[in-house]
Amino acid sequence: MSQQQSKTRVDTLITADFVITMNPAYDIHTPGAVAVKDDRIVAVGDQQTILETYVATERVDEGNAVVLPGLINTHGHTPMTLLRTLADDLRLDVWLMGYMMPVEREFVTPHFCWLGTQLAAAEMIRSGTTTFMDMYYFEEAVADAAVQAGMRAVCAQSVLKFPAPDAPSYEMGLERSRDYIMRWKDHPLVVPGVAPHAPYTVTPELIEAAVSLALEFDVPLHIHIAETAQEVDDHRKEYDMPPVPWLKKLGVFEAKTTAAHCVHIDEGEMRTFQHYNVGVAHNPSSNLKLASGIAPVKKMLDLGLNVGIGTDGAASNNDLDMLEEMRLAALLAKVATMNPTTLPARQALEMATIMGARAMHIEDLTGSLEPGKRADLIAISLDATRLTPQFRRDPDNLYSRLVYAAHQEDVRDVMVNGRWLMRDRRLLTIDAPALHAEANALAQKIDAFLMRREESVLSKLIAIGGVAQEKSFEVQVKVQDVDLKALEARLLATPDVTFLRGSERRQYDTYFIFDDQWGSRLRYREDEVMHLEGGDLIDVISRLTLTTTAKEREYENSIVLSRSRFDARGTRSRRFYREYFQPDRETEVHKERRRFHIRYGGTDLSVNLDRIIKPEGGGTFLEIKSRTWSQQDAERKARLISDLLAALDISPQALVKAEYVDLGE
Amino acid sequence: MSQQQSKTRVDTLITADFVITMNPAYDIHTPGAVAVKDDRIVAVGDQQTILETYVATERVDEGNAVVLPGLINTHGHTPMTLLRTLADDLRLDVWLMGYMMPVEREFVTPHFCWLGTQLAAAEMIRSGTTTFMDMYYFEEAVADAAVQAGMRAVCAQSVLKFPAPDAPSYEMGLERSRDYIMRWKDHPLVVPGVAPHAPYTVTPELIEAAVSLALEFDVPLHIHIAETAQEVDDHRKEYDMPPVPWLKKLGVFEAKTTAAHCVHIDEGEMRTFQHYNVGVAHNPSSNLKLASGIAPVKKMLDLGLNVGIGTDGAASNNDLDMLEEMRLAALLAKVATMNPTTLPARQALEMATIMGARAMHIEDLTGSLEPGKRADLIAISLDATRLTPQFRRDPDNLYSRLVYAAHQEDVRDVMVNGRWLMRDRRLLTIDAPALHAEANALAQKIDAFLMRREESVLSKLIAIGGVAQEKSFEVQVKVQDVDLKALEARLLATPDVTFLRGSERRQYDTYFIFDDQWGSRLRYREDEVMHLEGGDLIDVISRLTLTTTAKEREYENSIVLSRSRFDARGTRSRRFYREYFQPDRETEVHKERRRFHIRYGGTDLSVNLDRIIKPEGGGTFLEIKSRTWSQQDAERKARLISDLLAALDISPQALVKAEYVDLGE
Repeated sequence: MSQQQSKTRVDTLITADFVITMNPAYDIHTPGAVAVKDDRIVAVGDQQTILETYVATERVDEGNAVVLPGLINTHGHTPMTLLRTLADDLRLDVWLMGYMMPVEREFVTPHFCWLGTQLAAAEMIRSGTTTFMDMYYFEEAVADAAVQAGMRAVCAQSVLKFPAPDAPSYEMGLERSRDYIMRWKDHPLVVPGVAPHAPYTVTPELIEAAVSLALEFDVPLHIHIAETAQEVDDHRKEYDMPPVPWLKKLGVFEAKTTAAHCVHIDEGEMRTFQHYNVGVAHNPSSNLKLASGIAPVKKMLDLGLNVGIGTDGAASNNDLDMLEEMRLAALLAKVATMNPTTLPARQALEMATIMGARAMHIEDLTGSLEPGKRADLIAISLDATRLTPQFRRDPDNLYSRLVYAAHQEDVRDVMVNGRWLMRDRRLLTIDAPALHAEANALAQKIDAFLMRREESVLSKLIAIGGVAQEKSFEVQVKVQDVDLKALEARLLATPDVTFLRGSERRQYDTYFIFDDQWGSRLRYREDEVMHLEGGDLIDVISRLTLTTTAKEREYENSIVLSRSRFDARGTRSRRFYREYFQPDRETEVHKERRRFHIRYGGTDLSVNLDRIIKPEGGGTFLEIKSRTWSQQDAERKARLISDLLAALDISPQALVKAEYVDLGE
Repeated sequence: MSQQQSKTRVDTLITADFVITMNPAYDIHTPGAVAVKDDRIVAVGDQQTILETYVATERVDEGNAVVLPGLINTHGHTPMTLLRTLADDLRLDVWLMGYMMPVEREFVTPHFCWLGTQLAAAEMIRSGTTTFMDMYYFEEAVADAAVQAGMRAVCAQSVLKFPAPDAPSYEMGLERSRDYIMRWKDHPLVVPGVAPHAPYTVTPELIEAAVSLALEFDVPLHIHIAETAQEVDDHRKEYDMPPVPWLKKLGVFEAKTTAAHCVHIDEGEMRTFQHYNVGVAHNPSSNLKLASGIAPVKKMLDLGLNVGIGTDGAASNNDLDMLEEMRLAALLAKVATMNPTTLPARQALEMATIMGARAMHIEDLTGSLEPGKRADLIAISLDATRLTPQFRRDPDNLYSRLVYAAHQEDVRDVMVNGRWLMRDRRLLTIDAPALHAEANALAQKIDAFLMRREESVLSKLIAIGGVAQEKSFEVQVKVQDVDLKALEARLLATPDVTFLRGSERRQYDTYFIFDDQWGSRLRYREDEVMHLEGGDLIDVISRLTLTTTAKEREYENSIVLSRSRFDARGTRSRRFYREYFQPDRETEVHKERRRFHIRYGGTDLSVNLDRIIKPEGGGTFLEIKSRTWSQQDAERKARLISDLLAALDISPQALVKAEYVDLGE
């Protein structure tokens, strides 16, 4: 009785055969205990000592298990669980611009973000994660969902130079961020932050505004850096330096920064990170799946950087399992350095706990089991066959078992901020079946949206955005096997022909051909433009034109009225369009073109003198064209073209209907 | 009633929302059904059709789940589950020769193999594996354990040129293999085979004998090939060609071969495999963990090889989870080719099922759900959050969910050869808790064995084998700062000194220093030997010598009797010894030595004239030594050395007690 009275009362006493602290000495207590009062850890230590010192309202004995700090997921786009396995095994641009962004534009709302975060929380808690860092839209909804689930999170509001689902301009994005940060900055579970998305999706002004916001409220700043080699190359071309020094000049690292990915950074850039205490979020699965590369984690660790581990969004992973990521981080570092002693198990667990907290600048709150920190802890059962047998010779063996063999199935109990979120694998704060039902209903809508979109090449084209649907009609005629030099002289000498302007071009056309009901043909043209007199390249223009084989109408002299359903700047690569549209066939036509804009009979016409280079022996052509808008106008122009052909001394028998694309078939 | 009578009766009808067949057309039935009678699949197809055609004694409805072929683990050392997490994050040689082999020599018995395989089977069944390929010792015990667990297996008996736990010579290993194969060759679950371990652990004769055994009984041959770059380099040095053409010349590929790892093979070697239908077992986790490299799987697949997936032994993985390996295979291939479209999910599942069966030469039995094949199938529930939401637009989405997001926790039911091995995650053939208890008891013994061994440097030395413990005593004296040239002339001119032989040496000594109770010092010496007259290198000798700082006795004139506790050829690298022994400190001494064996007073003595190169300014030394066996002999030799020192005109004051190792401290 007197002994009982001399003990200090706490809320919860947790005992286990092993307690891993991840404190600076890496103490392991065997057996150990943790005492929790309110939201904090009061004591951690040897089991007997703790039991002699404290008495608790709630006593939990984990037995043959390890109690350790909860895992910390340092990078993700949490609501994207709702887009998991929507589209896989695609290249980053096709995946992002062909699927993720069009669907996000259509479906992302605050409720989408809340639902996706709740779904993610169910998965994260069941796999032992207690804290996550997020970068997405409507961040307040993410924060709300995290709090309802009981998880700790740094929720950073995305800001981009493009219109986003939650902000039509970056100024409005920053406004939203400021408002959100002000209201959440003292929350016990959520730390708000700002996330200028990546060097290639921001402007210097946007970055500077985001930094001053982060500094004003002393909140974390989250950003993607150097995820792909392409990004770094492009940045060098545009700014004459890689992203890291550019961001440094803009003052980014003055803020409490967490940089995601960092696959392609060099030692100098790492030293910059070290100097400014920039945390790194390493995302092994995502970097493999999108073939971004293997981040130089060993070197970062050797230079003293705080490197945490992240899952990235479920749309590129496809799960949110930190045990799996931790294991993969350890394995990849070995093969990357060709040294199996690299990144041993204890260091991998360190990255997934205390070092992750440091990378997120919240190590004062969480990441290790130490008195005074918030009670964020998990219990992993050691009963499974995969964790058998139990060797005890080497104390590092325990880390090995957790990193190389434990699965999420072994995570038994999860506590965050002193509150149990899972006991015996049963979620206490989340109604998973209800979330599943709602997520599946939404998936059906997304399926329908994409299937509708994929009904035609045109709708797929419109879906990738940036362009408006537009129809244009052209009256045109073609003559094969002409003497180009003689014809050019004759054209310019023809009375009533006024030369307006001209150019010499090399045109590389790829036709993507579809066996659909419209006979769709999507032409991707790279057009090298020079002066008519020759000389240097003036410009290279890529254009994308969708046509159908159906001709609208034919006039006398084989003059045809054709319709193009879409014509726009081709802003992405031929490879992108090929992988996105997946044509049934593909053919190429290359030609040299001398192009003349003339006025004839008061009307502007284009006259092209073409030599086909590919396919070989494709011959020479005269082409006369004019845009038109009405049937009356079309008929008038067809008559004018007939007159011009007569003036050029070309007989109607020489006219051909073949399109260039058919030459290549 | 009449409708019921017209139906064909089978044993089991399994229905599910999805049935993945992995047949040549990759048919997926949504919803689907499988009809099983005895050990075989009778029908697979559309659910309604199957239900209209068959009636069953047992009806299992999996609901929101996928029924698919059981996973096939194409490479492992199954009993090594018992050594899981015994020693991790070590280099291959330290891990293998320092830990695995010494423990195996001591502990591997038929019962060890049975127990380890049962433990492995519990884990494999729970993660959806129905078939495995094994290479280990006492293979009949492995086969017995597989049959008791109800699993299908190809069990290949290891044969090595070294003494193995189950055979003191390879001839006896082959004898054991023949006997085992004869008795098991018609078993319904186990296919016996022979496993010449690897090119570097066999002889040409052994290989040829193993091949003729495999051909005689038409059974599979399993072998490791090109796991590390080192192995290939060494093989080239020894045989002037890499392992694959060497094995081809020896006729290995005439047998039904499965080659494990193949991390370092080129396109020509892949074509050899293609020509001979050699199956490949790709082991992604093991190759990462041991830093062996990333196998060029994409190229193998493009060339039409049958590449299966394996876990390798649990001691280098550390679990036996094929879902995880399959996922890792898909992810690694993408980063290795820097292309995220490489090895899409369907192909990864194909490797883990039908292609694995082909790689093991048992595709007539298993690997796909097709009528006539054995009923080896699993049901994976799609209810988990990690598999939510469910998109249906793209049929490949189902493969994505299984490969990128499913976990072993989702595997609900497992059937092999028409028999249920697991229902609702409950194992039906294995008593896991009893196995755990026995495995943990054995682990305690192994712990004790290793801890005893690691009590002293000497016992650790003996544990890595190949040498016997041996003590030797030496009488020795040292004189510092001598004029080497003058002293050599004086020595050879001394009356009563007979010159026997001599050599010039460059000696590179590394001292590993231990703060143990004996003051152990382990010297690793690389000794370059030349003629006294100079000229080319005659030999390079590596020696390992364990001494303690304790001197046995001191005589007058600072002549000491020292004891070396171990002296042997150093067959492994300095790096190996460093990582294996983990000394507290390390120091280096390099010297040039002119070494004279002389006879003086009827006794053989060694006289060394040394110039220390490292540490710099280490000076010059005369050293006189002689081995001794008894105290009387030691005293006599000490007197002789005193006489010789006097004859060389060296005063007793010049003598020093310092050891060379202390120069470097």
